[in-house]
This record gives sequence, C-alpha cells and structure tokens, in this order.
Amino acid sequence: VTPQLNARGDVAVLVPAAGAGLRLGPGGPKALRLLAGEPLLVHAIRRVAASPSVRTIVVAAPAAEVEAVRDLLATVAPVTVVAGGAERQESVALALAAVPADVPIVLVHDAARALTPPELIESVAAAVRAGHPAVIPVLPVVDTIKEVGPGGDGSETVLGTVDRAVLRSVQTPQGFRHDVLAAAHASASDPLTDDAGLVEKAGLPVTCVPGSDLALKITRPLDLVLAEALLHLR
Amino acid sequence: VTPQLNARGDVAVLVPAAGAGLRLGPGGPKALRLLAGEPLLVHAIRRVAASPSVRTIVVAAPAAEVEAVRDLLATVAPVTVVAGGAERQESVALALAAVPADVPIVLVHDAARALTPPELIESVAAAVRAGHPAVIPVLPVVDTIKEVGPGGDGSETVLGTVDRAVLRSVQTPQGFRHDVLAAAHASASDPLTDDAGLVEKAGLPVTCVPGSDLALKITRPLDLVLAEALLHLR
Repeated sequence: VTPQLNARGDVAVLVPAAGAGLRLGPGGPKALRLLAGEPLLVHAIRRVAASPSVRTIVVAAPAAEVEAVRDLLATVAPVTVVAGGAERQESVALALAAVPADVPIVLVHDAARALTPPELIESVAAAVRAGHPAVIPVLPVVDTIKEVGPGGDGSETVLGTVDRAVLRSVQTPQGFRHDVLAAAHASASDPLTDDAGLVEKAGLPVTCVPGSDLALKITRPLDLVLAEALLHLR
Repeated sequence: VTPQLNARGDVAVLVPAAGAGLRLGPGGPKALRLLAGEPLLVHAIRRVAASPSVRTIVVAAPAAEVEAVRDLLATVAPVTVVAGGAERQESVALALAAVPADVPIVLVHDAARALTPPELIESVAAAVRAGHPAVIPVLPVVDTIKEVGPGGDGSETVLGTVDRAVLRSVQTPQGFRHDVLAAAHASASDPLTDDAGLVEKAGLPVTCVPGSDLALKITRPLDLVLAEALLHLR
C-alpha cells in the first residue's frame, strides 16, 4: 500500500536521490548534506509534505540505502522509498513506476532545493491542473552571460554575449501530466536531459511559472551559508 | 591632482554609480543600499582600496551628489569623484577621462558587487598585465537554462534548452588595457552593452579568469541576507 498524505490530493512528487552523491554519514554530499543539523532531503520532504495538493511522495534511494532512507524519513512524512538506478533519469522512471495510476499530476523535485516553499509546489501543480502538460518554475537570469570557447594559452575566451532577456534559470519541482511524463520517459534516450527537456523533445509545450528565490539549489559551501541564514530569518 | 592609493600601482578602478538607483537617504537602492549599516559603495571601495595594484579609484556619481559621495568616501580611501552621465556607459567614459594617461590597466567595477575580494581584483589585473587586452571574471552556470518565448495564454513557453557547459556568468571587475577600453568607448554605439562586450565588438579577444562566489551582485533582498551572513562569517 502506498503511504498517502492527503487522500484528496491529486499530485505525486518524485525525489530522485540515488546518485553517487547520496551516502549516509560524514562526507556524503548532496541529498544528505546537513543543513542546521538535518539532511537536505529531510528539509525538502518536510516542505513537500506541507503542500496540500500532494497525495504521495516517492523517493528513489541507492539500493543499499533504501531501509536507511526509509528510517530517516519515517518521522518526517509518509513516504515511499524505492531503489533508484545508476542514472538520475532511471531513478525518476523507477520512482514514477511506484505512483498509483489515478494520480493525475506528477512533480519531479530535487532534494538539493531543500527550502523550496509549499507555495511553489502548489503553483507548479496548479498550472498543470489548469491544462499545461509540462510546467517549470523559472527565474530571470540576472548576470551578463557569455558563451566561451578554448583560448590560445589554455585560458577560456569569449565567443559572444548571450541575450539574457530570453533566458530563464530553471528550478524544481518540474510538473507534468502523469501520462506526459510517463510517455517522455518511455522514449527517453539522452540521460543528461532534464525531465522538461524530454517533454520538449517529444514536441509538447513546456510552460514557465515564476520560481522562488527560496528554491535555490544548495550545492556549494556558499549556498549552505545562505540557506542557514534563510532558516534563521524564519 | 588625482588622489593616489599606491603610487607604484598600475591599475585604475572605475566605479560607475550615477544611475537613477543612486540616491542618498532611505529608499535609495543599489550603490547606497545599506549592508551591515554601511552603503554597498563603501564596502566595495574599501576592498578595491585594499588591492595593492590599485593606484587610483574614480567613482562616477550623479551630478547633484558628487559632493555627498565625496564626503561619504572621504574616510574610506583616496577617491576621485566625478559627475556621471545619464547612461552607465557614459558614466564609465566620464570616469575614464579622469584616469591619468600613464596608468596602463583600467578595471570597471560594480558597487553592487560590494564583497568582491581584493584577490579577485588582483587576479583580473594580473591577467591584463600578462598581455590579455580584456579580462572578465566568470563563474560556471549551475542551473539548467532554457530559452523562452511568449506562450499562447500570456504565459512563457520554452523554446529550447541551452547548453550551459559553454555559458559563463560574468562578474566584475572587468579589466582592460587602458588604450583598449578608451578605443572601445570612443566607438561605442550600443548603450546596453557591457564594457567587455564593446571590446568584443571591436574584434579583440576577451579572456576569462575564475570569478569568486564573494563577488555576487547584491540586488535582491535575498542577496542582502546572503551578504550579511558572509560578513558575519569573517
């Protein structure tokens, strides 16, 4: 039986966390990196579980860590933990296979975006519910962006300035109609493409909604400093 | 007489801060926004003045605020304050005109990158000194980037995924051989182009050096939170 959060919810959230980065214990980066004493994954799941539309959460963990991740999340929220694959895309597909067929909306989230507020999760889900087959939260690109190539002396040289007005920085969760994500993964060939990219390749429209500064990806030491500061602001 | 910091230095640093954003008093954003009780401009100038290669600093302020900005910086560092123009590019040209002809390297900095460490200023200057006519500090782009266009219902829709591996996010200071920056500005036509972009258009190579997380642009409220946290880390 799949653990449920809100039986009336129409959203499943997948959290692929099976990469080499997921290791319990010290030195284990990414999803289990500690923020204010708790793993990023715990922070992320807590906020997903606080989103009223979410019926079910599926985490893909490394095969050897499924029990440990289940224990870690036991007191956080009702969560299904499945064994993930070698590639992120395979983990998403394996997590998707655990979603009941009658859940119409599926979101794919990144545990490293641990402070993503429930409001953003609701906003992505609402846009799918309104009829968009695929939805991504985006932010404007604020810095000047250059395209670069190899320079003469081992340095990088600028090939050109990119028009940042048409660029958007993509966050998660990315949201999909259940059937659209399933079809995209069934025909996926490029393991490096993000989920929305698979839908793009399938020729379906991907719609943008405004992202959130709080949904920053926490990867570098500086991001942890910012995330701690944001937690203390609350 | 131009105030000098280090008479043996070979670098002038220009800080255009004459935009509509520069207003003294409450509500005045950008260069005079307060960080830990001091304007961003003060934080920025203090770090520029701590760079051993810097001989002279020129700030372009709004014409009506030249005296006030001079007073503000009087106790921070020896700085030349000139009246800027309506456009950022004009302010850079006016600040450049105040640089003694025998200073071979000119850097253009952004006061909003108030925590830029002296080490980055030295690194950009060193690359110009080593023979590169134009140098920019860059960081890799960490988020997935999409190109967007107008969607059907007033929303934005994705046109494609951009290969972020060849993209770099540009910081300041941007560094130039004095004559190269002067020539680029003499022939400048597009007021929206950054200084390195003017040099690109002139057909000269622009070389990248590694940027710094500390050189973040402090514009959004979230950036101020991060900047405060970084200051307290010291």
